[in-house]
Amino acid sequence: MDIATETRSIGVLIFPEAQVLDVTGPHEVFSSARHLLEKARASIGYDVFLVSKTRKPLKVSSGIEIVPDYDFQSCPSSLDTLIVPGAENIRQVLEDSELLNWIGAQSGNVRRLVSICTGAFLLADLGLLDGKRITTHWAYCEDMRRLFPQLKIDSDAIFIQEGNVYTSAGVTAGIDLSLALIEEDVGKKIAMSVARKLVVFYRRPGGQKQFSDFLMSQSDSPFGALVDWMIENLSEDLSIEMLAQRVNMSQRNFARKFKEVRGETPGKFVERLRICQARMLMENSDVVLKTVARKCGFNTEEQMRRAFQRELSVTPNEYRTRF
Amino acid sequence: MDIATETRSIGVLIFPEAQVLDVTGPHEVFSSARHLLEKARASIGYDVFLVSKTRKPLKVSSGIEIVPDYDFQSCPSSLDTLIVPGAENIRQVLEDSELLNWIGAQSGNVRRLVSICTGAFLLADLGLLDGKRITTHWAYCEDMRRLFPQLKIDSDAIFIQEGNVYTSAGVTAGIDLSLALIEEDVGKKIAMSVARKLVVFYRRPGGQKQFSDFLMSQSDSPFGALVDWMIENLSEDLSIEMLAQRVNMSQRNFARKFKEVRGETPGKFVERLRICQARMLMENSDVVLKTVARKCGFNTEEQMRRAFQRELSVTPNEYRTRF
Repeated sequence: MDIATETRSIGVLIFPEAQVLDVTGPHEVFSSARHLLEKARASIGYDVFLVSKTRKPLKVSSGIEIVPDYDFQSCPSSLDTLIVPGAENIRQVLEDSELLNWIGAQSGNVRRLVSICTGAFLLADLGLLDGKRITTHWAYCEDMRRLFPQLKIDSDAIFIQEGNVYTSAGVTAGIDLSLALIEEDVGKKIAMSVARKLVVFYRRPGGQKQFSDFLMSQSDSPFGALVDWMIENLSEDLSIEMLAQRVNMSQRNFARKFKEVRGETPGKFVERLRICQARMLMENSDVVLKTVARKCGFNTEEQMRRAFQRELSVTPNEYRTRF
Repeated sequence: MDIATETRSIGVLIFPEAQVLDVTGPHEVFSSARHLLEKARASIGYDVFLVSKTRKPLKVSSGIEIVPDYDFQSCPSSLDTLIVPGAENIRQVLEDSELLNWIGAQSGNVRRLVSICTGAFLLADLGLLDGKRITTHWAYCEDMRRLFPQLKIDSDAIFIQEGNVYTSAGVTAGIDLSLALIEEDVGKKIAMSVARKLVVFYRRPGGQKQFSDFLMSQSDSPFGALVDWMIENLSEDLSIEMLAQRVNMSQRNFARKFKEVRGETPGKFVERLRICQARMLMENSDVVLKTVARKCGFNTEEQMRRAFQRELSVTPNEYRTRF
């Protein structure tokens, strides 16, 4: 009978104000897998623990006080996977050089480096994400773009693997990513058993864009006033001709400038605004889809359906029943 | 400007081996709502804390060590909502009379009594669920039926409200239920903001049956051998005539007896077995749906589709893309 010939150390980093579900989600997923693997007398096992600067209890996001298993000094040196959680105050966390140094030192030794939510900011600051396609919490993508303009950020993915670096979207996405890591290590069967045990969707439909808020209007940024006007007039003709005219620019120049400062074409931007508006209407009213489409400036219900599929990977109907 | 004129105390019970996500999920949902309500200077606020027998750090399911905020003596007496988590070893927890007595004493005073996952066992033991429709983790429904035969258990719900008592399905369902409680208190807008922040589906499609495992065969229980044979021969004719013949009983007597010991008609039972098998095939292979239907004994793909809709509230196609 085989008994674990290889035990993989899964270290979950923890610091004050870390998002509690970024920490407990992955920790529980790996712990559940550990139990299942022990029962199955599998050849691979897991050892899962929390590492922090000191072993003193610390308060995480929700105010829950947690006791770390190891400090940086006593932490086992042979980490297989290091999981770095996020926090709402991530820019403050970036100032903790002792924390960053430790992550940096580990990064060269671990087999897998994983960030949950805004944990990606810590890896980015260390240059560990350079040249890689990555993701983070949808609400922080803009912030990330400003701080680390060299990164390729996919604001819709639930998680992304690039080499031995894994980044994931906000909070509960850490559970999804951890399930994928377990599938990678020991197969789909164990991973699905964990998912069923925790009553988690094994693979969620759609991306995290479904969760992003109505696009903020930013009157003080370039084209901000135009965007504000667009939001108020979504049912109007917002073709590139009309928009360029409104800001007294040539179509060609307008299209180029807009793309430059907003990162996407005016057409795509308008489509996303319309989808956001449609979602708001559907979430907060029982208006029929045909009316939703008209109010948001889609020519037909079918056009709206195609835009939803493209942008959110769900139909308006599915969206309505889901939210 | 309104500042919280009413602060509601949300107490989350905690004990050794409690499922960590049953505890941290609801705790984080209410804590997030608290922050949003403070920012909005709303008239209702939340105070969220962990209560345990003593204030000593204790290890929860995954091995994480957590420090409770209050013990039973120091816990604020005016709890608005008491949240009772589950545990894998819930039958052991049932032997803790001090814990049960405390829940019992609170139950008469709180505005809302909430169980997550197998936490329902603790409320059931105190008689607090008698006469109510309730739910718990899908894997424990049978156990619950045996221990508390007087209860009306809905093994598919994500959560159920009956009067001021709320029960929910396994683990992550505690997040779903907590979002519903916040919607009840302060409206959909705040609840949806929390869901978006935590990147949680606001309302999940389908019920928890999607997560239940292949039905266990139980050779030593009545009809156990017959069920084992059925599992091996799902593509055969499993009509009531054939099954009755196999066990040398009249159709009428067989149908009556089967319903009595298995809790459902032979027809329904066979349908569920076929769905379980179809799910296994879809999860572990790329077999086309038509073949899946045939292998599992559905006459047509359409018949399988209707069975899936009825039983799991999703189509086979949706099921496949989701898991």
